[in-house]
Amino acid sequence: MSHPLDTALALQPLGGDRFEGCTSPAYANMIGPFGGLTAAVALQAVLQHPDRQGEPVSLTVNFAAALAEGPYEVTARAVRTNRSTQHWLVEMTQAGAVVLTATAVLAQRRPTWSALDLPAPTGVPAAETLASAPNTPRLAWVQRYDMRFIEGGLPDALDGVEQPHAHSRLWLRDEPPRPLDFAALTALCDAFFPRIYLRRRRLVPIGTVSMTVYFHADAALLAEQGPQHVLADVRGHVYRNGYFDQSAELWSAAGSPLATTTQVVYYRE
Amino acid sequence: MSHPLDTALALQPLGGDRFEGCTSPAYANMIGPFGGLTAAVALQAVLQHPDRQGEPVSLTVNFAAALAEGPYEVTARAVRTNRSTQHWLVEMTQAGAVVLTATAVLAQRRPTWSALDLPAPTGVPAAETLASAPNTPRLAWVQRYDMRFIEGGLPDALDGVEQPHAHSRLWLRDEPPRPLDFAALTALCDAFFPRIYLRRRRLVPIGTVSMTVYFHADAALLAEQGPQHVLADVRGHVYRNGYFDQSAELWSAAGSPLATTTQVVYYRE
Repeated sequence: MSHPLDTALALQPLGGDRFEGCTSPAYANMIGPFGGLTAAVALQAVLQHPDRQGEPVSLTVNFAAALAEGPYEVTARAVRTNRSTQHWLVEMTQAGAVVLTATAVLAQRRPTWSALDLPAPTGVPAAETLASAPNTPRLAWVQRYDMRFIEGGLPDALDGVEQPHAHSRLWLRDEPPRPLDFAALTALCDAFFPRIYLRRRRLVPIGTVSMTVYFHADAALLAEQGPQHVLADVRGHVYRNGYFDQSAELWSAAGSPLATTTQVVYYRE
Repeated sequence: MSHPLDTALALQPLGGDRFEGCTSPAYANMIGPFGGLTAAVALQAVLQHPDRQGEPVSLTVNFAAALAEGPYEVTARAVRTNRSTQHWLVEMTQAGAVVLTATAVLAQRRPTWSALDLPAPTGVPAAETLASAPNTPRLAWVQRYDMRFIEGGLPDALDGVEQPHAHSRLWLRDEPPRPLDFAALTALCDAFFPRIYLRRRRLVPIGTVSMTVYFHADAALLAEQGPQHVLADVRGHVYRNGYFDQSAELWSAAGSPLATTTQVVYYRE
């Protein structure tokens, strides 16, 4: 039996740059599918395109409309192929209307001098020693992730008492466990609760407008990570007149950088 | 006489979604024009499109190839217009080949609860009390900015002695002064020296691959800012196998958030 993520990511080639997919109830959100999954599908269309060269370095996904349950079409077009990089444009449509746009840059990486300005978190308790956060039964997608909070879990009391910040540190992985790949990592980058829920200890209507992922992992590092938990640090930045942004870093179980990600989110009230 | 930025941003409508522009020697970089200027042109095509609705919330620009000096064509297409948001795809071409792709989200903002998780820097000396950094005479674009470093200027000694991080804090503005608008703010987001120069105290070949800007300013805040210096904090994240990422926050003279920005940069060696 295939993993629910592989079912949800499945795309059928329609010839040329076109693919067809279908929303998956296993990743349902309040309205339409979990955005991280939709972002992963956009990347998947690039990765399984026969013209693809290299591995992803950056991905930006813009969510233009909530997807309806059912089929969608994805067009992935290589607009420029250089010696070591390749630039892609992706559009997802339902009934002819654009629901998502994305751009991706792929590259063939070579070993170079490497370093971190962002140190990997240290002194962190092992995932195995922490309890899994209880799942929200009404949301299917949350059940697709095992989240173990070191700090900054979704507050028990949604009492509207404002907090001074919205930092979380957690271990997370696909549920059931699944070896990490670029698509799964993309979805993980959107699996953090919107910072405004933590900051305000209050649920307000929200929707991610745009998300960017910078991939620091290559295929070798992903293979080394396998199905282990990923360590993540997440924080909010600026909340102003209906839009806020948040960022996160994701680290392998062994402390190597997997991805850095930012997103801007619409909110009401 | 018009400001060099306005000259460089000028686009002639070619009908429909198409515009023509031309590189400007005033913003020349080592190869082709300064990337921040090219990013600003991509946004400008959206902003002056007759179908445009709202103000920019996010912009992602992918640099697919170095521009050659001379004319280029920009196509800006509104792929989805919702009640309060609008999604754009932008492509820039020279001689029929894609040199840049971009996506932008525009929105009509309304006043809401607002807050900062990222506090504005405090205790910062006023721009007027600081010396302007000397310009690098060989690069035209650097002369288009007045930069006053509080910390983390380009090191005097490029002696290859690695530094533990690459943080800069500076005041900067267009030179000569010019009222801030969305296009100018976009260019400012790319006006920080690549973090790897500071981290390694060494110049290595680099090129920005993708840049994202989240706009927190609206037109009213930009008008309040006018031609004053903008305060910026910039830092590096992860340098790994040929690509590194950096992020920055830009603040108004009065301490309001103008933009947050990230970019991923190719480097050799």
